[in-house]
Amino acid sequence: MAAGSTFGKNFRVTTFGESHGAALGCVIDGCPAGLYLSEDDLIPYMKRRRPGQSEFTTKRNEDDEPEILSGVFDGRTTGTPIAIMIRNRDQHSKDYSEIASYYRPGHADYTFDEKFGFRDYRGGGRSSGRETAARVAAGAVAAKLLAESGIRVRAYTRSIGPFEISGYDAEESNDLYMPDHEAYMKASEYLRELMEKRDSAGGVIECIVSGVPAGIGDPVFDKLSACLAYAVMSIGAVKGFEIGDGFESAKRTGLENNDAFINENGHVKKKTNHAGGILGGISDGSDIVFRCAVKPTASIAAAQHTVNKAGDNIEIGIKGRHDPVIVPRAVVVVEAMAAITIADAILSDSCDRLEALRGR
Amino acid sequence: MAAGSTFGKNFRVTTFGESHGAALGCVIDGCPAGLYLSEDDLIPYMKRRRPGQSEFTTKRNEDDEPEILSGVFDGRTTGTPIAIMIRNRDQHSKDYSEIASYYRPGHADYTFDEKFGFRDYRGGGRSSGRETAARVAAGAVAAKLLAESGIRVRAYTRSIGPFEISGYDAEESNDLYMPDHEAYMKASEYLRELMEKRDSAGGVIECIVSGVPAGIGDPVFDKLSACLAYAVMSIGAVKGFEIGDGFESAKRTGLENNDAFINENGHVKKKTNHAGGILGGISDGSDIVFRCAVKPTASIAAAQHTVNKAGDNIEIGIKGRHDPVIVPRAVVVVEAMAAITIADAILSDSCDRLEALRGR
Amino acid sequence: MAAGSTFGKNFRVTTFGESHGAALGCVIDGCPAGLYLSEDDLIPYMKRRRPGQSEFTTKRNEDDEPEILSGVFDGRTTGTPIAIMIRNRDQHSKDYSEIASYYRPGHADYTFDEKFGFRDYRGGGRSSGRETAARVAAGAVAAKLLAESGIRVRAYTRSIGPFEISGYDAEESNDLYMPDHEAYMKASEYLRELMEKRDSAGGVIECIVSGVPAGIGDPVFDKLSACLAYAVMSIGAVKGFEIGDGFESAKRTGLENNDAFINENGHVKKKTNHAGGILGGISDGSDIVFRCAVKPTASIAAAQHTVNKAGDNIEIGIKGRHDPVIVPRAVVVVEAMAAITIADAILSDSCDRLEALRGR
Amino acid sequence: MAAGSTFGKNFRVTTFGESHGAALGCVIDGCPAGLYLSEDDLIPYMKRRRPGQSEFTTKRNEDDEPEILSGVFDGRTTGTPIAIMIRNRDQHSKDYSEIASYYRPGHADYTFDEKFGFRDYRGGGRSSGRETAARVAAGAVAAKLLAESGIRVRAYTRSIGPFEISGYDAEESNDLYMPDHEAYMKASEYLRELMEKRDSAGGVIECIVSGVPAGIGDPVFDKLSACLAYAVMSIGAVKGFEIGDGFESAKRTGLENNDAFINENGHVKKKTNHAGGILGGISDGSDIVFRCAVKPTASIAAAQHTVNKAGDNIEIGIKGRHDPVIVPRAVVVVEAMAAITIADAILSDSCDRLEALRGR
Repeated sequence: MAAGSTFGKNFRVTTFGESHGAALGCVIDGCPAGLYLSEDDLIPYMKRRRPGQSEFTTKRNEDDEPEILSGVFDGRTTGTPIAIMIRNRDQHSKDYSEIASYYRPGHADYTFDEKFGFRDYRGGGRSSGRETAARVAAGAVAAKLLAESGIRVRAYTRSIGPFEISGYDAEESNDLYMPDHEAYMKASEYLRELMEKRDSAGGVIECIVSGVPAGIGDPVFDKLSACLAYAVMSIGAVKGFEIGDGFESAKRTGLENNDAFINENGHVKKKTNHAGGILGGISDGSDIVFRCAVKPTASIAAAQHTVNKAGDNIEIGIKGRHDPVIVPRAVVVVEAMAAITIADAILSDSCDRLEALRGR
Repeated sequence: MAAGSTFGKNFRVTTFGESHGAALGCVIDGCPAGLYLSEDDLIPYMKRRRPGQSEFTTKRNEDDEPEILSGVFDGRTTGTPIAIMIRNRDQHSKDYSEIASYYRPGHADYTFDEKFGFRDYRGGGRSSGRETAARVAAGAVAAKLLAESGIRVRAYTRSIGPFEISGYDAEESNDLYMPDHEAYMKASEYLRELMEKRDSAGGVIECIVSGVPAGIGDPVFDKLSACLAYAVMSIGAVKGFEIGDGFESAKRTGLENNDAFINENGHVKKKTNHAGGILGGISDGSDIVFRCAVKPTASIAAAQHTVNKAGDNIEIGIKGRHDPVIVPRAVVVVEAMAAITIADAILSDSCDRLEALRGR
Repeated sequence: MAAGSTFGKNFRVTTFGESHGAALGCVIDGCPAGLYLSEDDLIPYMKRRRPGQSEFTTKRNEDDEPEILSGVFDGRTTGTPIAIMIRNRDQHSKDYSEIASYYRPGHADYTFDEKFGFRDYRGGGRSSGRETAARVAAGAVAAKLLAESGIRVRAYTRSIGPFEISGYDAEESNDLYMPDHEAYMKASEYLRELMEKRDSAGGVIECIVSGVPAGIGDPVFDKLSACLAYAVMSIGAVKGFEIGDGFESAKRTGLENNDAFINENGHVKKKTNHAGGILGGISDGSDIVFRCAVKPTASIAAAQHTVNKAGDNIEIGIKGRHDPVIVPRAVVVVEAMAAITIADAILSDSCDRLEALRGR
Repeated sequence: MAAGSTFGKNFRVTTFGESHGAALGCVIDGCPAGLYLSEDDLIPYMKRRRPGQSEFTTKRNEDDEPEILSGVFDGRTTGTPIAIMIRNRDQHSKDYSEIASYYRPGHADYTFDEKFGFRDYRGGGRSSGRETAARVAAGAVAAKLLAESGIRVRAYTRSIGPFEISGYDAEESNDLYMPDHEAYMKASEYLRELMEKRDSAGGVIECIVSGVPAGIGDPVFDKLSACLAYAVMSIGAVKGFEIGDGFESAKRTGLENNDAFINENGHVKKKTNHAGGILGGISDGSDIVFRCAVKPTASIAAAQHTVNKAGDNIEIGIKGRHDPVIVPRAVVVVEAMAAITIADAILSDSCDRLEALRGR
């Protein structure tokens, strides 16, 4: 839809910017006053999505230096909009005339032309993965805000191609953000083979949000699960979303799938968490667990058939170095969108009960 | 979030109503003037989600008679809000004191209490499946609007439990809305067995939207795929969503997954449709294809463990007759949410180009 | 704009209904759970805008009986949408074919046709003053909510035609809601004269909101004063709005207009209240005071020139009995819109500070 | 309310920035693709609100150089968000410790502290008049867009203190933007006297929007007049708004105030324009005419009483050079807000009728 670059109701994030324009960034409106914030809080997040850090990402140097333009004074947020800008470097260095002339399969070139009649074709323009840099900056702010309430958002690579982790090894640290050494080794080998073939891979990212109190979310359209789906599906290349046991639960019976409640030391808990932490759209106090499917990188060097703007059927091989898999870099983007969504839900849930109003 | 009962930006649907309140319904704001509309357009849709029509749905009689309260004059919409009301019949006939005292597994009883401190426990209140009656009424209006542009939305049962259709048989008509006779027979048998065990099943619904022109949707947060995910995941019991090949595409390579463009009689087409009709968040002119996972009915008569409001660990069996599977009745709800989403996207996309503005 | 029948962000009111349709009403989304509410809370508000109660209002009987359709259980709000419906009685009793054929001066007949190409002409359709019945019902809920925080909204007639109150006499009670007996007597006489001439009068309504704590509102677009202006200017026939000293302050000097701050028993107070209780868009703890200008009733029986749909220049006299002044009946509508606006602002202001978030 | 820095639904403007932060600016989301746009289109607008150009504005040099960061490619808009940034120069040059310690009368110092518990006190922070620079940049884009449809927005000073123009002299050009030479001379003399007394003046700005076709706006909450009121009342220091004859019309009779329709060469026109171009919230094809009241500059050097943060009653004189009247500089801000509002209304009104949808 038109005017679709704003996300959220009470913690609102508006992003702007194209891959090769002057800059990209975001405006965060609704962040409470008093949060300690500086560029140093953003940089670790920015680095995680930056290319050039492993054999499986492009060597292109995106030295993303975020600058906070507003909304922070004396080191703390003021409650007014926080604008963050990231300059694009060397954006005029390349010849994009070829890319302008045809429609890359799996990309938004054709659909942009149909929608706008005109597009910034340099590096994918607004539909470039670079757009997510702005989301990550905003997500870093949301994550810091959530940490004040003891909420932690953590995503990782669950699978690449056919290789899936068999458990979560907190000690394992690798450039695919895959917390299982054996799966990591297999996935790495798989990726090297695809790179040889000038082909690419997809995968699945899993995210766990812990510390969300019970009672967050809304029962109808703005179910917390629906908002997370919207947030995560809005990331380029994401083709599927599931909460809790997701598509697996569709194969189960009610007895197998229902999570029994139990009294644990005076607290209502669930024996299992097939639901993924959300019941009827509202958080139930368990970990919120979801996954998303990321398609294989559309930009591949192998030969593909397509159409150029003149209408000729042609064969192309996309030049340049592209990520053979974007899953590892998308992990932090998923975290960012989850953090923004949860922050918005929490800020929106302040007046569910009359007592809250009276207390002011 | 608070105030989360409105969906859409330019074709806006607000719903209201609880399972056993006086009435439920919706207000549709933004429907263009001039559309022929009467209750007769709504009734076929309402009937499809009504219970009591097969051995696999509750016998409870919900004789849903929608009444259009506003927005229609001389048989046509006037461009002002269309309010539709559906009275709840016999809503005081039952004793709900037991259900009020404990938390049903898989239901929103506990989370409502945590959020609002208080709930209408009769028949699930706002979190009841009855809430979807209002969505279906609104969806019928959206579907009629889309038909004016040649757009058709069609959903069906893809699988129930482990039984999946192997193709789409347009001739097949059955009470599970499952377009494959063999799968239907197996699923029926499976459901009968579960009913014996006082257990329940889930399944997968597939939806195809045909006739959407290329260029609808937005490149960033309001990707058409993200909006569809939000819409469909907001239906109670839906735990997963995927567009095109979804989670399958995460296992493929780029070469396998990319859809080649081809010139067909002067039109840009795709050879395949792994993408499910949306590229970069914008429709590409192919059929839009998505699926969602529906969990097994949470209300089962078999014994389950839970906690009552006093904090005691208890064992319950949920009384009354409940649907052993809600998938068949949810098919039309999925259609409704898809129609609303596409209508909103199309009405929002009118001014992507300057020429459109000049032409007024 | 399209889809413009919803007001507010966190206390959201959507209205529907035409003068002579089946019903009109509203859906209130975002009202906290736990508020005691029944139709009895609405009726006193509804009565104040009802015609037929004085010599200066139409004798037409609008026996507005609001019915709460949802969102209330066991006498208290549940936090889910509150739908309220008011049936239109005898809406088919009159012949509107004449009114359908021409454009009444001062009315929206022509502009509706230009916008929608088609309109419900019976009694003005959606642009009828009857539309405000739905606002008043919603306003009654907002007012009850505000009362829980000690906030009171009170409007009255400040002037009718050239006759203005010279003070506020709380003892004075009359059918023009004009709290000054002498002004009331003069205004009554003035109205009787206009009725003889088949002409009509306008006037000014003043509203005072007391008890709003300092700190409510937003510094930029959503200034509390701007939101009040939007709310009140959205009432049909309102042509002007001013906060505090309004247009008078434009003639003053800074020294005359600034309100000095003073410490009163440890509290920051203002010596005067030229600002009308809002500084920089945010409430300052003083009474919020605003006024609005209501134009004279457009429907008059005296002869007027206009154009019919065939394009002929014609002379008309609008038949039927019409209010010679709508100001007294609009008083409660102004109160309603102010209450809705303040309720929305208060519910939206819950997380200005980080401490509020931590406290959850 | 929280998150209140976004204006509009389909032409959405989000602003950010404080008086002495790193930068301020805006993001415009929803501008159609294909509009020729560069910084050169913004600069003439920016210059009109810039100080330092007459004896009646501060000498402070705000050399506002807008930079378009995104949304424009090859000189034309792409349909994606247009971000515009304006760096603040020399923002650390002054000592603001004194201003931090007390509450300036007529300013938002106290209300910001009550709302956020903390504020950027340098130069007024977010509540500074500098915030309007971002609005003017966005307004310049909206104005250029409207010009494509033949719509022109034009504001001017109607009065300063007690001195009002008696007509509109298009030839007159002066630094008070007051189109009547005699009134200008008197207002100038009046301002010089106030400057001697270290006092300030207010005034009234009038705005005329010509070329808006009939049929734009919405009948209920989003009346075009209500949206204009919201837009203009959101400008700092504006205390009143009126459309057409506004408060004057409240004193008239229906016969005097109604605008008769007349057939002029086959077009429906009005003989008079008391309504100010809007009937029932929808444009009627006449010029849209409105006025707003601007209070006298709150920052004055003359002695005033106030309270400091320690709670002491003190006397202050605000140092530094301040505008003795902000009306002339606010003229372009009023134009900007009007242009943004009309652009939003036009983009939102594209699907009032079914035919429009079919035509796509």
